[in-house]
Amino acid sequence: MDETIITAAMIVIGDEILSGRTREANAHHLARVLTGVGIDLREVRIIGDDRHAIIETVNALRARHTYVFTSGGIGPTHDDITADAVGAALGLPVEPDPAAVKLLTDHYARRGQEFTSARQRMARVPEGAILIDNPVTTAPGFVIANVHVMAGVPAIFQAMLDNVLPSLRTGRKLLSDSIACPFGEGVIGAPLGAIQAEHPDAIIGSYPRYEDGRHWAEIVVRAADEKVLETAAAEVRSMLDALARGE
Amino acid sequence: MDETIITAAMIVIGDEILSGRTREANAHHLARVLTGVGIDLREVRIIGDDRHAIIETVNALRARHTYVFTSGGIGPTHDDITADAVGAALGLPVEPDPAAVKLLTDHYARRGQEFTSARQRMARVPEGAILIDNPVTTAPGFVIANVHVMAGVPAIFQAMLDNVLPSLRTGRKLLSDSIACPFGEGVIGAPLGAIQAEHPDAIIGSYPRYEDGRHWAEIVVRAADEKVLETAAAEVRSMLDALARGE
Repeated sequence: MDETIITAAMIVIGDEILSGRTREANAHHLARVLTGVGIDLREVRIIGDDRHAIIETVNALRARHTYVFTSGGIGPTHDDITADAVGAALGLPVEPDPAAVKLLTDHYARRGQEFTSARQRMARVPEGAILIDNPVTTAPGFVIANVHVMAGVPAIFQAMLDNVLPSLRTGRKLLSDSIACPFGEGVIGAPLGAIQAEHPDAIIGSYPRYEDGRHWAEIVVRAADEKVLETAAAEVRSMLDALARGE
Repeated sequence: MDETIITAAMIVIGDEILSGRTREANAHHLARVLTGVGIDLREVRIIGDDRHAIIETVNALRARHTYVFTSGGIGPTHDDITADAVGAALGLPVEPDPAAVKLLTDHYARRGQEFTSARQRMARVPEGAILIDNPVTTAPGFVIANVHVMAGVPAIFQAMLDNVLPSLRTGRKLLSDSIACPFGEGVIGAPLGAIQAEHPDAIIGSYPRYEDGRHWAEIVVRAADEKVLETAAAEVRSMLDALARGE
């Protein structure tokens, strides 16, 4: 296996996303950040607050990918079951982490608030987990094996991701070239497919746009090698020029 | 199995979502629409334009759920492989559908445009599929077995969903009651969990909010039975009133 290919999957946990009450807001951010550092996000799964579903999904994805990232379900209420389910998926006991207990004890003491039994739940992590700092509301996320367990609230998710990013192995970034195409996909489909077939080391994507009753497309050429990218992109531009001349 | 429980899964197909180039825009709409008619969306998976991934995901989800909905990958370019992959998942040949060919032939004739080989790809469906009307750009979606294959462009996805909705079996809608809670989840976590434990037929969710440095939460009680809903929601309100009185 090519050591420069690092893959990831995301698990979004929350009934409120699947019921349509809340719009999912972390996957797009994670996708952009991982792409930026050369980690290939291969799959996102949105599942409910369901212990069996979390266990099954964590185990399916942690075996397949370099990294798994979860969002949601690490708060203090009865429907926050992510830490327990991730522990169960890995066959590990879930216990209060002394460092997390201290962080939260100090946090609530400073605020003059009670460290309730509900809040104490937020210090529970699978045995051996490494805490992820939460600069927003203190309650930490954690990393266990290759699974990164983070909050669902976007400001906290983003802060936690910033904190774990330096610890990740990163891969070879794909270079990309974006080409605005004035023709609809129905016009360019066949010649673009031919260019893709001739350049298997490039990834050529076509993204249809439909605005004001007019079809156009954005063509994106991606490749790890600059020469491959340039050659394939030049062929796409020549093809579009030829079409514009009516050839 | 309770006949009134109808479940669904969604498969979002597109490299552009996983790379972060495009923000996914159909899952939230589908979730809201399905919830509105009593269909329980249990899972969403976002995968790339990858034949193997599509086949595996379609087969995993169509066996588990009453309905599967896909978005994306049904355009005219080489990376639009959804129809072929869904056909392969079901072991069915994928051929031009005569009705789809006629729709598209007429559409391009009216516009004075060529019905290119790329555009002809959009008439290909698995054997036995039923077309889904596309009032926006004509190229149809299709239903095969319990799999609904629809476009990724949001305006088209929404129109196709409107068209298939009357054909779906719908379930028992959950009634719901939303209660604004001025306390953070750390305060209400334990008593809310106790109320949930006493009312197993109600689903009590708590959704943390963090605004202007202040924690609050929205508590949503859901139940199929009106009496169950009223009783559980009344207990949540009593609990909040008691907390407000400092009890």
